[in-house]
Amino acid sequence: MGQELGITVSKQKNPSEWYTQVVQKADLADYAPVKGCMVIKPYGMQIWNSIKEEFDKKIKATGAENAYFPLFIPESYLEKEEDIVEGFDPEVAWVTHGGEKELEERLAVRPTSESIIAPFISKWVRSHRDLPLRLNQWANVVRWEATDTRPFLRTREFLWQEGHTAHATEDSADEETELRLEQYREVIEDHLAIPSVLGYKPEHDKFPGAKYTTTIETLMPDGKSIQSGTSHQLGQHFAEAFDITFEDENSDEKVCWTTSWGLSTRTVGALIMAHGDDDGLKLPPKVAPIQLVIVPIYQDETKEEVLEYSGKLQEQIKRSKGCGCREDIRVELDDRDHRSPGYKFNEWELKGVPLRIEVGPNEVDEDAVTIVRRDDGSKEMGIDRREFLHSVEDRLGEIQESMFDELESYLDENIREASSKEEILGTIGKSRGYVKTRWCGDEACEKEVKDQISAEIVVLPFREDSEPETIQDSENVIGGDCAVCGESAKRWAYFAKNY
Amino acid sequence: MGQELGITVSKQKNPSEWYTQVVQKADLADYAPVKGCMVIKPYGMQIWNSIKEEFDKKIKATGAENAYFPLFIPESYLEKEEDIVEGFDPEVAWVTHGGEKELEERLAVRPTSESIIAPFISKWVRSHRDLPLRLNQWANVVRWEATDTRPFLRTREFLWQEGHTAHATEDSADEETELRLEQYREVIEDHLAIPSVLGYKPEHDKFPGAKYTTTIETLMPDGKSIQSGTSHQLGQHFAEAFDITFEDENSDEKVCWTTSWGLSTRTVGALIMAHGDDDGLKLPPKVAPIQLVIVPIYQDETKEEVLEYSGKLQEQIKRSKGCGCREDIRVELDDRDHRSPGYKFNEWELKGVPLRIEVGPNEVDEDAVTIVRRDDGSKEMGIDRREFLHSVEDRLGEIQESMFDELESYLDENIREASSKEEILGTIGKSRGYVKTRWCGDEACEKEVKDQISAEIVVLPFREDSEPETIQDSENVIGGDCAVCGESAKRWAYFAKNY
Repeated sequence: MGQELGITVSKQKNPSEWYTQVVQKADLADYAPVKGCMVIKPYGMQIWNSIKEEFDKKIKATGAENAYFPLFIPESYLEKEEDIVEGFDPEVAWVTHGGEKELEERLAVRPTSESIIAPFISKWVRSHRDLPLRLNQWANVVRWEATDTRPFLRTREFLWQEGHTAHATEDSADEETELRLEQYREVIEDHLAIPSVLGYKPEHDKFPGAKYTTTIETLMPDGKSIQSGTSHQLGQHFAEAFDITFEDENSDEKVCWTTSWGLSTRTVGALIMAHGDDDGLKLPPKVAPIQLVIVPIYQDETKEEVLEYSGKLQEQIKRSKGCGCREDIRVELDDRDHRSPGYKFNEWELKGVPLRIEVGPNEVDEDAVTIVRRDDGSKEMGIDRREFLHSVEDRLGEIQESMFDELESYLDENIREASSKEEILGTIGKSRGYVKTRWCGDEACEKEVKDQISAEIVVLPFREDSEPETIQDSENVIGGDCAVCGESAKRWAYFAKNY
Repeated sequence: MGQELGITVSKQKNPSEWYTQVVQKADLADYAPVKGCMVIKPYGMQIWNSIKEEFDKKIKATGAENAYFPLFIPESYLEKEEDIVEGFDPEVAWVTHGGEKELEERLAVRPTSESIIAPFISKWVRSHRDLPLRLNQWANVVRWEATDTRPFLRTREFLWQEGHTAHATEDSADEETELRLEQYREVIEDHLAIPSVLGYKPEHDKFPGAKYTTTIETLMPDGKSIQSGTSHQLGQHFAEAFDITFEDENSDEKVCWTTSWGLSTRTVGALIMAHGDDDGLKLPPKVAPIQLVIVPIYQDETKEEVLEYSGKLQEQIKRSKGCGCREDIRVELDDRDHRSPGYKFNEWELKGVPLRIEVGPNEVDEDAVTIVRRDDGSKEMGIDRREFLHSVEDRLGEIQESMFDELESYLDENIREASSKEEILGTIGKSRGYVKTRWCGDEACEKEVKDQISAEIVVLPFREDSEPETIQDSENVIGGDCAVCGESAKRWAYFAKNY
């Protein structure tokens, strides 16, 4: 393998350069001429489309409908909701000219669409019969981030879905917020094989104007946390600002409760970081564009028989799911004549294909295959072809599970409890990961830590014992004192450095 | 039915107001706060997504891969290709500020992406082995049209796909251009049931910088033509401007041939216009989000049995395709209690659902259904339920075909030959439609007509006899003289008013 093809740095020693190399060399993305923007290449796009299809299926099955709202939001619309203005104004790209003419009013390229969608929800919702109204759009958005832009992880333009819903009651909005977060969990944990932590964002870090924000946080191998998806209960705040009301069963005018929730191409970045290794990308079978690759190994005199056997094998694997109407298994035959088997091995490892099948004259003679797993590098030779065909699905399932389990151990090992400020600082400084601690709910206590070590509270986890029911519950139900100020604690909080 | 729900004008007498009402009342789209932009509502989005899925399947099966390129194109990139600048500059929306800061260079919101995609094709293509390279993106684009904006038909922001390919030879680029036009024909004629005319655009009306442009033109019921899709052979012009070269088998450096091709949400507008009638939208079964609607008709004492029968019927229809793994038939049960059957009939007619099934106590007693076709209004009562279930697919197929046939007769009747300028003017003035005429190839002859009656040459059709092989052929192979100037004619040309 040429220097050019492979990854030349260690993921552990230089995660940042490692990431840049994997993104480019595994053909996931390229750098656009405008700083902070990216070109998503076909291989990266297939991964995003797999995530998209998976989530789209889930939300359609639970009442959401896709729509499309305009890219441009008049400045006066953005200003209708104060918190949105303050939250997003510094990051807005502004259109000021159409053709040769200066526009009368500046147009924001949407950084998020609450302020353009809410007026239509207001118009379309008349009666309690119109509720809940659940809209979703798959779209591009722009946030003029100044620093640290990186393909997928932080880009000025990115692709995402944004769901926007309106409800008759607070309970219904709470349930919606929870349902969408749970569906994010299914995508991240079950489809991408990345165990994660679900919970609330602290009050001071919620979506501008929201009642509360829930988040799914994922621990990256460099010990930093990444927000993979967020689901916001917006309360009645937006409904009041945009006049979203309905007539209830008694013909009384009521104000709606609304939610919004989003998942972006950032998840592709999390996927790359979470699973990759020094040989490149490592993809869980469910999301892999190519699940198996067949590499034929031959000399001139064995070429014909090896290629014929490989070609048949490819067809058999493709259809091996049985019924014939379920989706085919995604298998490629790499029959390029100008590349050596060794080159091909390295290239497919770089691209993270879960299973490699080697077919040489021996395999043909024995009616067998040799297989190599990408996740653990294990090799099995001389597996009977028929037996292999029967076990393809199970083998892919096993890899999917094993990749999840490996990261789960990593996550478990990297949640460390601390009960004083010094301990928080020491633990994050030394080991990174999540530092679990009792917290009084005061931003000042977070700030004390943040000022010293640029770690913050990334999530107030759902899954701890004696969990308060909602973020509003202010009782000291978890017992004990805040690790920073010593006052009575309200919740468990996870400190971490983050993306 | 309230005044509010139904269409209040005649399609024939006032097509423009009719269109506006159908778009809004059938829940297809709404008007955005920015002039010329639109909100695509879920029902309209389902139609666009059906077109999208249909075309996406075709291009994937023929070698194209989806990617995503940036929304913003630096002004200097647009300027690299002179014809593009001249062609699109007046219609560009410009971003000048990111957050509080003025940008160093203005960014165009893409009006089309040749100038941002070509540099990457240049970078990615190295050897003849990389060719043909076929990229496609599904994206939003912006063209700051000043006048006559209408939802779907002409909007400042619209959704589309744009394909961009690079080839080693001219033949390969010609074939690509033809293949994509043929796939547009399949979508428009087979999926949307709209017979169309395929051909070249005149030299002076081709895509800026292209070698030639092919188009699929559709005749609307108001006698105007609409361009439903275009496929451009770009020659080596763009490849030279953007340095798209490759090393051939002999290690010689060669310049590529490129193509581009696009289909947009405008097709949804064509669909509305082509099939609709005074009762509203009329959808061909293949593209209809709801193919059948069941309307139960009951009194208090028959409600339970009618609803039970209807519910079972819905399940049976859904699965009536047999195998159980093919896509379900799209059937809805309208069991709203607060609406009368009459209201529902009108609403589903307005929304263009191809088949309505009425179920009352009589149908339950007879184990039968009553069905009403949207396309011709015909009603069949007392059809045996089992017989109906066996025939659902055939019935939908028959409607699809019949809707195509009806428009085909209309198209045939509205292609009228003319052999002098006066005859062209008279025929368009009196009957609209296409006026077929011999043409010398000189823009001046078109201009003489255009100046007097604002009709132009919309297509040089492929399908006439004695067709020149390519647009470049300058022989008078069709015989006869140009209808306008009397010089030797080069091709058949269709004049029409257009969208």
